[in-house]
Amino acid sequence: MEKDRKETPVSPILGKQSVSLQKPVYMIDSASIVGKKEGEGPLGDLFDLVGEDDMFGAQTWEDAESTLQKEALGTALRKAGWKAQEVRYLFAGDLLGQEIATSFGLVNYELPLFGLYGACSTCGLSLTLASMIISGGFADKAACVTSSHFASAEKEFRFPLAYGNQRPLSATWTVTGSGAFLLGAEKTGKARAKITGLTPGKIVDYGLKDSMNMGACMAPAAADTIEQHLKDFGRQPDYYDKIITGDLGKVGQTVLIDLLNKKGIDISGQHMDCGIEIFDAGEQDTHAGGSGCGCSAVTLSAYVLKMLEEGVWKRVLFAPTGALLSKTSFNEGQNVPGIAHGVVLESPV
Amino acid sequence: MEKDRKETPVSPILGKQSVSLQKPVYMIDSASIVGKKEGEGPLGDLFDLVGEDDMFGAQTWEDAESTLQKEALGTALRKAGWKAQEVRYLFAGDLLGQEIATSFGLVNYELPLFGLYGACSTCGLSLTLASMIISGGFADKAACVTSSHFASAEKEFRFPLAYGNQRPLSATWTVTGSGAFLLGAEKTGKARAKITGLTPGKIVDYGLKDSMNMGACMAPAAADTIEQHLKDFGRQPDYYDKIITGDLGKVGQTVLIDLLNKKGIDISGQHMDCGIEIFDAGEQDTHAGGSGCGCSAVTLSAYVLKMLEEGVWKRVLFAPTGALLSKTSFNEGQNVPGIAHGVVLESPV
Repeated sequence: MEKDRKETPVSPILGKQSVSLQKPVYMIDSASIVGKKEGEGPLGDLFDLVGEDDMFGAQTWEDAESTLQKEALGTALRKAGWKAQEVRYLFAGDLLGQEIATSFGLVNYELPLFGLYGACSTCGLSLTLASMIISGGFADKAACVTSSHFASAEKEFRFPLAYGNQRPLSATWTVTGSGAFLLGAEKTGKARAKITGLTPGKIVDYGLKDSMNMGACMAPAAADTIEQHLKDFGRQPDYYDKIITGDLGKVGQTVLIDLLNKKGIDISGQHMDCGIEIFDAGEQDTHAGGSGCGCSAVTLSAYVLKMLEEGVWKRVLFAPTGALLSKTSFNEGQNVPGIAHGVVLESPV
Repeated sequence: MEKDRKETPVSPILGKQSVSLQKPVYMIDSASIVGKKEGEGPLGDLFDLVGEDDMFGAQTWEDAESTLQKEALGTALRKAGWKAQEVRYLFAGDLLGQEIATSFGLVNYELPLFGLYGACSTCGLSLTLASMIISGGFADKAACVTSSHFASAEKEFRFPLAYGNQRPLSATWTVTGSGAFLLGAEKTGKARAKITGLTPGKIVDYGLKDSMNMGACMAPAAADTIEQHLKDFGRQPDYYDKIITGDLGKVGQTVLIDLLNKKGIDISGQHMDCGIEIFDAGEQDTHAGGSGCGCSAVTLSAYVLKMLEEGVWKRVLFAPTGALLSKTSFNEGQNVPGIAHGVVLESPV
């Protein structure tokens, strides 16, 4: 049997756009670091590090975000007992123009870097590519890092903070935080989860233009990736304990469930959104929920992986979404299309 | 022998950061589209399409750049006789904040997209990841697309064009152009080249801060990747007919050759820079040379692949560099670090 398998290897290609990993990639360890507000939220006790203020000892918000990435990766490496040099490749990105949080946050690790941009889907994008590169035999160990920062994102995408503008209830609150994930080909000792399937997503544009309602802009992309994932793998929603999006928030959650219902797919029993979990919207005045690359990354590290590690959940589909806009594209009247990348995480138990 | 190989597969991991592809990935076809100025340069006759003006029928510079990506990929697909749906995954990126040229240029292809950011190294980054994903068996066909546009880049990084500021002689001129590359696991019919090796690069920061001399800022990263590549593969510079950087320009070329000379590596006989080749600096007033993601991409498609296809060159190392800065990081006094990703391209003959 073993011999047969070697001579006719099973192709990992599955359906229209998915990949099935016969031999899983292991999520060896991870770390999360967040700002003060996130630390005060419902998941506050679960994060590895909570900042006392949101500057993290830096002089600028952008440099503060770089510090988040540096600390998240450093903490993950310490937790796993890995030396930085053991990591063969880094997969990382953030929301800022030209990804400066990543460049200046990770430069001192002196590791080969694959710079990625998938807006708030970047955590899923990084796990997808790193899993393929490890499964393909091109690296034994890799690390994925993503971040966002409330203040650097407001400056990059919206209004100067000092302007004190009002926010509609459909708006989300960019999470200040960074998550780092260490992936390995082998389970040496413990692992937090195993990655067994991937569904990279395509850009989906429903013609929406409201950057203050990004949940609605991104929901069609989440629906597209989840639908294609279930089709490619021949699974029903209840195969998963949770189907997890990144930062759709309350408005986007409704749109996603409605869109899939129209296709005969009911995920209402499984759906969870990191943006809804991370804040207490009523108490913390965050409106529709949290957002940003950091939102799904820190929730994955602190909460989702904990539930898998402990065997409370057996299998989840993690599909963070990104809104593909910039200040320039918004000002020029372009739509806000979305993208979502799906990653299957299973309990290592 | 064949049987032995199957039972003990050779690892593609080579040295500190390289990958050796025992079974090459094929560059099936490619396309280049450029603006008027690039069409008037020394490589003008070799490009697939030259625009009559730099708007390409669009209303904004950003949308013009999106049009470049759309047309480059469309042209490559037509040349190869591929349907868009045959492409399993897209690997693409550009220089603009949040990569809007890519998002709006490629949305209508409805293909799973891996968004990448490596500044002007993005063409090398996209070929590196696509080659690994194909070689690992996760896709049979993939496409890589990158672009830059003189006017959208000036607006993004420097001064408003209408300001008419003077440019120092060390400055480069952002190329208006896009290159698209179709990669396949199998050589079905013709191929323009084969990809046999990869050396992903790390961020290298020598503390330089002059965004008007990006050649000097990026040269240390090129030196680092080229040195590591030669070490990992155990090769001498003269193994290659050409060692090709993307947009170091004349100042950066001198720095690169000097840096490597100090390490006992002489590439002066092999080095070629796409930014130096694409313009006639004297006639076209482009100072140190061309730059931008589009510079290395269109030169690779139009000139380098032609030389490999015709067997004039047998082997080249293509290592485009990126300068990791943004308007914000520059204004906040950050350095301008660089990164370079190396790809070995061989004649398919």
